[in-house]
Amino acid sequence: MSAREMQTALVPARVVRELRELQELTGTSEGAQRVCWTETWARARAWMRDKLSALPVTVEVDEAGNQWATLPGRSPHALLIGGHIDSVPNGGWLDGCLNLVAGLEVLRRIASEGTPPVTVRLVDWADEEGARFGRSLLGSSAFSGTLEVDEVRNLRDHDGISLPDALVRYGVELDRMAQANRQVEGAAAYLELHIEQGPVLEQLDLPLAVVLGTYGVERHAIHFRGQAAHAGSTPMHARRDAFSAAARLALAARDHAMRAGAVATVGRVTVQPGIPTAIAGECEITLDQRHLDLAVLSQVLDEARQASATIADEERVEVIWERIWRIDPLHFSQDLIELADEAIRETAGSSHRMPSGPLHDAAEVARAGIPTVMLFVQSLRGLSHAKEEDTKPEHIELAVQAFDRLGTKTMGWIGNREVDNA
Amino acid sequence: MSAREMQTALVPARVVRELRELQELTGTSEGAQRVCWTETWARARAWMRDKLSALPVTVEVDEAGNQWATLPGRSPHALLIGGHIDSVPNGGWLDGCLNLVAGLEVLRRIASEGTPPVTVRLVDWADEEGARFGRSLLGSSAFSGTLEVDEVRNLRDHDGISLPDALVRYGVELDRMAQANRQVEGAAAYLELHIEQGPVLEQLDLPLAVVLGTYGVERHAIHFRGQAAHAGSTPMHARRDAFSAAARLALAARDHAMRAGAVATVGRVTVQPGIPTAIAGECEITLDQRHLDLAVLSQVLDEARQASATIADEERVEVIWERIWRIDPLHFSQDLIELADEAIRETAGSSHRMPSGPLHDAAEVARAGIPTVMLFVQSLRGLSHAKEEDTKPEHIELAVQAFDRLGTKTMGWIGNREVDNA
Repeated sequence: MSAREMQTALVPARVVRELRELQELTGTSEGAQRVCWTETWARARAWMRDKLSALPVTVEVDEAGNQWATLPGRSPHALLIGGHIDSVPNGGWLDGCLNLVAGLEVLRRIASEGTPPVTVRLVDWADEEGARFGRSLLGSSAFSGTLEVDEVRNLRDHDGISLPDALVRYGVELDRMAQANRQVEGAAAYLELHIEQGPVLEQLDLPLAVVLGTYGVERHAIHFRGQAAHAGSTPMHARRDAFSAAARLALAARDHAMRAGAVATVGRVTVQPGIPTAIAGECEITLDQRHLDLAVLSQVLDEARQASATIADEERVEVIWERIWRIDPLHFSQDLIELADEAIRETAGSSHRMPSGPLHDAAEVARAGIPTVMLFVQSLRGLSHAKEEDTKPEHIELAVQAFDRLGTKTMGWIGNREVDNA
Repeated sequence: MSAREMQTALVPARVVRELRELQELTGTSEGAQRVCWTETWARARAWMRDKLSALPVTVEVDEAGNQWATLPGRSPHALLIGGHIDSVPNGGWLDGCLNLVAGLEVLRRIASEGTPPVTVRLVDWADEEGARFGRSLLGSSAFSGTLEVDEVRNLRDHDGISLPDALVRYGVELDRMAQANRQVEGAAAYLELHIEQGPVLEQLDLPLAVVLGTYGVERHAIHFRGQAAHAGSTPMHARRDAFSAAARLALAARDHAMRAGAVATVGRVTVQPGIPTAIAGECEITLDQRHLDLAVLSQVLDEARQASATIADEERVEVIWERIWRIDPLHFSQDLIELADEAIRETAGSSHRMPSGPLHDAAEVARAGIPTVMLFVQSLRGLSHAKEEDTKPEHIELAVQAFDRLGTKTMGWIGNREVDNA
């Protein structure tokens, strides 16, 4: 077959149709309900297995609950294509499953051409969202080897059910999860297509972008302790107002982020006693700072720490920082970034390069040392994790075409590396 | 008797002893528990009636639940001395009951001298704190005629018990409460001694102050509506962050208050969705502004409204103001302020004049057109409505002495007015 005929097997419109079909099967009027380790999630996976059964692939679920479909190629070196069929409660119709259903379409196209030059594997990562137990990237972190099972052993859901008890109902034993790391063997590249979940591409009026990596994150709870006192009887100069201090830090951290090109968010704010007639004796805020460059991330964190000390001094309050979580920035493969850029330009005319603010399973795969890249497709109004999440069907189709081109290019790149290493 | 002998019947130390006795009877290790319309409150009132039974007074409870002890004088014109025996839960040992127990001691001293020139009445206002149903100054507002019973008819406590049902257990029928206004008849002056509940006198190293009036209050809920979005995927310039807007307004309102010599407090802050990884789509704060001068109060309110509009515009969020409550400033009697100032100087050497930030029953009495004044005694660390609330015993004794002097001076002042009006 010619290259032109090779593309004819790809039916981008089928991806939109199948995504609607999945939404119909596993969503409600409130949105997608495919929370991991639930029956609705299991139904979604059965639906995917049914689709895969028409292809010459073997399907297995690994020790961490990741579901793999493997199309053997002439080489054991494998191109991995991944996504996650789980969703948040009342989630959108695209987050996570677009990647899988598009990957399925690419797999169909490749399989239709006979045995591929390299092995191709479609992976549905288990529990990307962490919606039930609060730990995201669970399956992909078992794959990459970064999962510490003792850190998640005692997690419980809202009903008090423990994570190990919930997982075992779906065939996953916590103490065997780390064995999923064996799947790294032979993995030569990883591709993931995702909705942007932000407003950047819509504002640029572009359908697609290549993702440079995922932001590093510094997430802290910052506690200010002043003195609760009567709103009427305490003159302004005599106050030790924990909320005023927190408000000043929030605005300062925003300024630091703006100047550095980073992002910073104060998303949770609590005050005590929290009544209209009392000055806040206590105020706790969370500060989530992100950037793709570790030096910049460290800088904005340092600036916020210094500002908080100055503010606490001026406001005569105490300040205590507690780290909730952090992760280093992860940079995707420079070679694959170039291929993705080509694929987008060939499909949509122009491309864009941008970091990913949210984390994705791709970050865990990259941490495992596997050359990785992602494509973003435009989100409408930047909304995600809500039923209003949406992307134009024509953009979904363009994304499938670009993703397919990238698959072909990446198989070629894997082949060239085999030659170079031979 | 000479003026000197007249004073000998006053035993200021007994006030401290009796306050400790009341604390023992109606407090726990967590503080005072005399919440109005409870058995502990009723026990405190019975304790007071027992003390009063040794005096030549008649005791009655009026239609609003206010408890009156009347010592008839040669004139029906009455000097009123008031306080409240109810407390907040886990309250202090002085707030409200200091006034009553000091008033009891003054009443004892006056009664020990035979029939006074004017009638003297000690009133224990019902439900000053509003701790159970959220409506403060209940009994004194029935007295002053400002209570609208239909506005409180549907109030319920945390257990769902309605205010009318709770009151009727203590002999108070909601629809008859307004009849308590009959007690205004003959009232010629009102005196109230209270702890400052703020840090001003302690910082000035003064035991006592005369109170010029109670602050006017403007209390609003201010709601900012932006757009919830992902903390990672939304660039700073694309945000509509409701919390940043609220933080800016809180700091601006603080600046306005400082420049105007007013007070302004943001005591309650809520954000939605309120998670570390989401920009706040909604933020509501309360703003409580106070000043003794109505023009200044109006000015700081206008400044805050204008600032909120500017901020909302710059942050691309909506802002909605909702008034929770307001009250005009109330100025106490100039004549009685001068007498109180004299009484303090004669007792403690030097006096101080200051407004009251918190409201008191005295504000309702002043609204009824009765010449009113209050004394403040120093609070330690400005703390109140907490078990840590405290005042030095020697300051309590000085306060009782000054309050007693003020009583004598005020009886003379009432007598002089009778002569003037004759």
